[in-house]
Amino acid sequence: MFEVFRRPPVRTEVQRLRPRRSGVTVPRVALAELTPELEPYLAQAAYIQMSIFESVARVATLAPSVRAKESLSPAAGQALDKHHRLVAELGKVTDDPAAQMQGIAPAIDHYAAVVRGGDWYESLSSIYLTAGILDDFFVLLAAGIPGDVGTKAAKIIEADTKRDVIPVLLADAIAADPMLGSRLALWGRRLVGDTLLVARSAIHQSGNVYTDEQRIEPVFTELIAKHSRRMDGLGLTA
Amino acid sequence: MFEVFRRPPVRTEVQRLRPRRSGVTVPRVALAELTPELEPYLAQAAYIQMSIFESVARVATLAPSVRAKESLSPAAGQALDKHHRLVAELGKVTDDPAAQMQGIAPAIDHYAAVVRGGDWYESLSSIYLTAGILDDFFVLLAAGIPGDVGTKAAKIIEADTKRDVIPVLLADAIAADPMLGSRLALWGRRLVGDTLLVARSAIHQSGNVYTDEQRIEPVFTELIAKHSRRMDGLGLTA
Repeated sequence: MFEVFRRPPVRTEVQRLRPRRSGVTVPRVALAELTPELEPYLAQAAYIQMSIFESVARVATLAPSVRAKESLSPAAGQALDKHHRLVAELGKVTDDPAAQMQGIAPAIDHYAAVVRGGDWYESLSSIYLTAGILDDFFVLLAAGIPGDVGTKAAKIIEADTKRDVIPVLLADAIAADPMLGSRLALWGRRLVGDTLLVARSAIHQSGNVYTDEQRIEPVFTELIAKHSRRMDGLGLTA
Repeated sequence: MFEVFRRPPVRTEVQRLRPRRSGVTVPRVALAELTPELEPYLAQAAYIQMSIFESVARVATLAPSVRAKESLSPAAGQALDKHHRLVAELGKVTDDPAAQMQGIAPAIDHYAAVVRGGDWYESLSSIYLTAGILDDFFVLLAAGIPGDVGTKAAKIIEADTKRDVIPVLLADAIAADPMLGSRLALWGRRLVGDTLLVARSAIHQSGNVYTDEQRIEPVFTELIAKHSRRMDGLGLTA
């Protein structure tokens, strides 16, 4: 699946995923054909927004200036609001949303620690890129949920992220330090592997029958294409 | 001023404040008689809410369970919302709210690091107690601001903090570990000194003429009395 990269990425993280079998014709399967179970879907989608909130709150806390802090804080508020709205949806189908989320929390928390990065700029670019992939993924996955809950969840997730400030903050820093751009380009490529593992795990945990790698792959190709556009938006070579 | 403590507190932090001169009759002065300058007042009040937000987001991130995390997250949202509303007020009287806040940010950030505590329970009790004192203080101070801005600011600060969950979380932990209660009681007393220094500094930076220690003291006595009630609410000996 990583052949869509225009350049060979750092392979460290990537090797955890099985290589694509060459010569196999991959059918173009829309994620709408995947029918995730509602409770695990909402629990995962809600907890991912909590994780995004925590990451944004952390970079806001560590921001080098009050101006940067101020510009990031609305993104924290948006992720927290989305979390609460998705938990409210989860609360309509289960008595104990926290218990539903507790099951997947350790894996997501571990993932968040892995993609945190070594400094403020890596953390910042990670939020923009990983939250971008995960938002795209959960919106796509919502299409397979029967009734109007999927539409509602997709609308919540798609609402303004207020993360548009991140490319601006990064552009200033990259312009002042070209080496930072190279480092963040490598970092941005590394993030994809771990993030797609979270997505794949979400499909598996949703008890979906279409978990065959070949069926998931076209969806991931779409996610990676959108990721590449975000990399471009950051001025980084995908 | 620390004689209102029912027991002698740990003196480490306290000694930074000058001892009360014995035998001096202290006039009862309402903070309404202090007339803070609007811009520094709003900048400080707004940045304190940002600091509360950051502290709550941190304890939510580090919460031992998703249930605890969920119960704390609304308090983060409330503090962030109050911050944004106070910044909006600040934006009506200055072109550059971030610049106004930048001046006081290092002192508040340093204070936040000092009162953070050594573990999750100290952090949690610190938020409840220090944010309690500072909210009380900025509401009292608002009374001296001419026009309706003070009333508006006080209403913003006084709005539901969603921190009522903290005594519940602490009560469970203290019931399970009596030593924790003793440790948090000491910690709760220590926090007062540093917090009142922030408050005193806010009065000084607001360019107030009534900065004589004796005039500030009755106000602090009131803040400490309310602090003692919060300590009681936590089941801790003030």
